[in-house]
Amino acid sequence: MKIVIDGFGGDNSPDEVLKGAALAVKELGIEVAVTGDTDILKKRMEELKLSSDGIELVHAEGVIQVEDNPRSILKEKANTSMGVAFKYLADGNADAVISAGSTAAIVMGGTMIGKRIKGVKRTALVPLMPAKGGVRYCVLDGGANLECRPEMLQQFAIMGSLFMQKTMGIKNPRVGLLNIGTEDEKGRELEQETMKLLRNTPSINFVGFVEGRDVPLGAVDVLVTDGFTGNVYLKACEGMGILMKDAMKSMFFANLKTKLGALMVKKQIKEFSAQMDYKTIGGSPLLGTAKPVFKAHGSSDAIAFLGAFKQAKRFVENNAIEEMAAAIAQLSDKEEA
Amino acid sequence: MKIVIDGFGGDNSPDEVLKGAALAVKELGIEVAVTGDTDILKKRMEELKLSSDGIELVHAEGVIQVEDNPRSILKEKANTSMGVAFKYLADGNADAVISAGSTAAIVMGGTMIGKRIKGVKRTALVPLMPAKGGVRYCVLDGGANLECRPEMLQQFAIMGSLFMQKTMGIKNPRVGLLNIGTEDEKGRELEQETMKLLRNTPSINFVGFVEGRDVPLGAVDVLVTDGFTGNVYLKACEGMGILMKDAMKSMFFANLKTKLGALMVKKQIKEFSAQMDYKTIGGSPLLGTAKPVFKAHGSSDAIAFLGAFKQAKRFVENNAIEEMAAAIAQLSDKEEA
Repeated sequence: MKIVIDGFGGDNSPDEVLKGAALAVKELGIEVAVTGDTDILKKRMEELKLSSDGIELVHAEGVIQVEDNPRSILKEKANTSMGVAFKYLADGNADAVISAGSTAAIVMGGTMIGKRIKGVKRTALVPLMPAKGGVRYCVLDGGANLECRPEMLQQFAIMGSLFMQKTMGIKNPRVGLLNIGTEDEKGRELEQETMKLLRNTPSINFVGFVEGRDVPLGAVDVLVTDGFTGNVYLKACEGMGILMKDAMKSMFFANLKTKLGALMVKKQIKEFSAQMDYKTIGGSPLLGTAKPVFKAHGSSDAIAFLGAFKQAKRFVENNAIEEMAAAIAQLSDKEEA
Repeated sequence: MKIVIDGFGGDNSPDEVLKGAALAVKELGIEVAVTGDTDILKKRMEELKLSSDGIELVHAEGVIQVEDNPRSILKEKANTSMGVAFKYLADGNADAVISAGSTAAIVMGGTMIGKRIKGVKRTALVPLMPAKGGVRYCVLDGGANLECRPEMLQQFAIMGSLFMQKTMGIKNPRVGLLNIGTEDEKGRELEQETMKLLRNTPSINFVGFVEGRDVPLGAVDVLVTDGFTGNVYLKACEGMGILMKDAMKSMFFANLKTKLGALMVKKQIKEFSAQMDYKTIGGSPLLGTAKPVFKAHGSSDAIAFLGAFKQAKRFVENNAIEEMAAAIAQLSDKEEA
């Protein structure tokens, strides 16, 4: 198996990308292709004393920036490290792609260069979020499609459910539709219509409407919603996480006594921080593409990149895309029938 | 000043309502009317040894329940403790009303019995949320209107801004429009159109788009959004708050050593919990009504009810409704001009 990674995506590139790639070769037994200016990449690998075993460097010019128009990945930015990585994947040279670069460009490039699964209306960005006890749930759409139709959400539910099964090892993932209450009559037309569809989707374990309050406490494995609401939900969680972390810091650093107290719960704090940390998980898949595309967090380090490689590997090994394609095809058959 | 309170609204009614009313009379120097079965109320006051000074009991029959159709507050449930409280207000016997009962019934009753300010398109429920450092910001709409037009959000921005000035004592409240990014082109048509309106609303201090991540960290004083998004945002914050609180508990109760550690930061934990606690603030106003309507939290105790009385008193004293009416009228003049 070979996975291609955007060598210049993310805040800590290329060094942490290269370190992550070397770790992936060693620990996962895969081959890795790294895109970017090969002179720089070669030089950094030497300086970091990284083995080149199993690592191929693929030349690219420049980097697509967050402020660049995401569409430019298809044309004027096609030769950047991200553009070349997508092309490398599309040409069949790799089994999956990872990038920590501009999210919008990944959604655009992944969808347009990587193509969609037949029948898939829209691709969805699918972040994994921490819930109580250190488990993870996925949210889709996390922001790729601001406004969605019920049929899109139905496909998201199917793809998210398969992702959690095939990549995260959850047997019968509970799929919930985000709403402002759990009673049948709650929500907008979108929630009402989508509920009808999801109740008639036998391939998923639909548990009904779910409120945002119950999701971080572990109510569902797959949270389905439109991209605008999903993004607001995700960022609210993130903001509250930062608020609570800051508050804990102030508490423990208040004075000598509290610092002593902090020492006594040090191990527990560390464990909890690890539970809440995106690094232990890796990337967010872009689901609905015909080839696996993973977005790594912009501030990923080598360990986070290794996490993304692990995810991508499991995704490929377990034929997640074939399963999604079959489920989507079945859906279309049903519609036509 | 006289404030009427629904004697049987909330999980801890009528006892905590009565205790809160007695505290309000004593500490705020106001008169209070409590609605409900006067036999029961009288008996509970005696048993709780509460002074009846400044407290009037107003007879009502039964209680409207969360599962009742909110519209019933206008007809078959008009004689319940909440219905009578609204009528008491509408008849001019009190300056403001407080209830910890069914939110949907309060929105319905407050709007229909209390009437709207002239020109106000919709009333909004406006929860106050804790942000970094213990400050508060308000969210509107918090869930009364699932789908909103830009003109509604513009009115919400004006009312929320005046509420934060007149009741929370914030001089030049920063008004932000909730969005998935801060760049001008971000968001749905609703965010795009509303931004144009808010940029042309001189009476508010509009700071532009704001992401949910930055709001708990103190980015704005007034968060404007539609009721669906607002409710999802609020509940995500709530869920993450519970998650973090649970996690802290597990950390500190892990073993003897961590329990000792907990003792050393006890004071700081207590302070932080107080900052995050809705009880220290009281109620959520229903804004846009011609008379002040406050929703207290369903699990309010006497201290939380006292908080709601304090808020309502400041709201009345500072002529918040007159100011809102003037600002809304100005808006209509502008539209007509």
